[in-house]
Amino acid sequence: MNYSDLFEIIVKKRSFLCVGLDSEIEKIPSFLLKEKDPIFAFNKRIIDATHKYSVAYKPNVAFYECYGSKGWKSLDSTVRYIKENYPDIFVIADAKRGDIGNTSKMYAKTFLENMSFDAVTVAPYMGEDSVTPFLSYPDKWAVLLALTSNKGADDFQYHSDDGIKLFERVLSVSRKWGTVNNMMFVVGATHAEMLIDIRQLVPEHFLLVPGVGAQGGSLEEVAKYGMNSKCGLLVNSSRGIIFADNTKNFDKVAGEKALEMQVEMEKYLSQHKLI
Amino acid sequence: MNYSDLFEIIVKKRSFLCVGLDSEIEKIPSFLLKEKDPIFAFNKRIIDATHKYSVAYKPNVAFYECYGSKGWKSLDSTVRYIKENYPDIFVIADAKRGDIGNTSKMYAKTFLENMSFDAVTVAPYMGEDSVTPFLSYPDKWAVLLALTSNKGADDFQYHSDDGIKLFERVLSVSRKWGTVNNMMFVVGATHAEMLIDIRQLVPEHFLLVPGVGAQGGSLEEVAKYGMNSKCGLLVNSSRGIIFADNTKNFDKVAGEKALEMQVEMEKYLSQHKLI
Repeated sequence: MNYSDLFEIIVKKRSFLCVGLDSEIEKIPSFLLKEKDPIFAFNKRIIDATHKYSVAYKPNVAFYECYGSKGWKSLDSTVRYIKENYPDIFVIADAKRGDIGNTSKMYAKTFLENMSFDAVTVAPYMGEDSVTPFLSYPDKWAVLLALTSNKGADDFQYHSDDGIKLFERVLSVSRKWGTVNNMMFVVGATHAEMLIDIRQLVPEHFLLVPGVGAQGGSLEEVAKYGMNSKCGLLVNSSRGIIFADNTKNFDKVAGEKALEMQVEMEKYLSQHKLI
Repeated sequence: MNYSDLFEIIVKKRSFLCVGLDSEIEKIPSFLLKEKDPIFAFNKRIIDATHKYSVAYKPNVAFYECYGSKGWKSLDSTVRYIKENYPDIFVIADAKRGDIGNTSKMYAKTFLENMSFDAVTVAPYMGEDSVTPFLSYPDKWAVLLALTSNKGADDFQYHSDDGIKLFERVLSVSRKWGTVNNMMFVVGATHAEMLIDIRQLVPEHFLLVPGVGAQGGSLEEVAKYGMNSKCGLLVNSSRGIIFADNTKNFDKVAGEKALEMQVEMEKYLSQHKLI
């Protein structure tokens, strides 16, 4: 899936919602625990209920890996299910991998070749040769961490000695490694107005934005400061959608929460004259 | 395993060798491919042949993850095998993980609780809350990336505006998050003399040093500049040992290569009056 395809789907669905499948077994409705693969059973129902309002899904690999080989099966079943049933949906492995060149190549192979993911999140600390293996698959993407939404972002990402913060350096150096067709950046939404400066550095790239809830003004601000002429945003919501309810109706409620976000997103797409 | 235990094993074995189990299926002797789990069969024979000369093993998770749920079984069997047969050996999951706090907690659980690893390599980009979950297990360790040995290390790790390079900042900030009993640092051996300055920042910590071959002067320099009063070094060798031969004798040859390194290491431990 390339840049234009992604924009096309955003226009078609009037949404730039990414649903985070952080499907912790302790948090899924207990009646699902009798299923053979409870995590996949949960994801399947979440996906069926939310796919109309979403352009992307993002399973965080930590929540699957934790169950060893069984967890990897749940992850594989999930991405297969999406691709078989909803092939126009973009699927991101939130894996935050990154290692020396020949090792990153194995990680890229795992997610982009052996599994059917469209994209993988990658940590930038080890530099260019740790990232480029993810860029060599046509229509596949690396989503590089730039500015994350956790407290620890202060420790290094915001550090600056000459007025250029580390995350800004990551953006300006790494954008040369790929193109707008194979690289995105993770940019947390904790201070949405920072997107003004970020858009100076990466005006065209898609940004994957975590840290936005189902309600509140921050989605409005992310759209205001971050949206470009091809939308250029995938806004992620995980718990606010997938764990909004834990009764037998959990999927229906998840669908309603996703719809709420889609409706709000449609408004911003329309304000920006993209639909 | 704590700091003193590790030093005790180093003294007992007269070695600070870590064997990297980067067991790519394309590189293992072809006669092993008929085994039910070729990667585990390979590792088992490498471990049996090298354990006398090694204090640590370090499987790089990328080379297992690449085979999905089957690969995770090989990884789990490998760490179990080491712990059941050679319980005084330190086992590092070279996973380079790191995510927001509650997600890093899942990664820590995976490797340090569900599996029997003593340590996990962690990327520092997301800061303190991404690292501390790995520090909360007694006698277990986080091995934080500081200075890696790949070309991409130049992109950000060496960057400095005020004379303090990013990797130096990572060392000086992160050393406060844990103790010498639960944190080590990855420091590549490409410029061994840099260990002089690094030892100013982290005089007592153990350093995991990749990028040292079976021969050559660099091991000597690493020992010269990096060794402290408790050795403070685990020097890794992967291909130079595990892929030194690919005939039926591969394990015997691996054992010989490991012995060569142990003999050299014994010399430096003796020169430093640690044995």
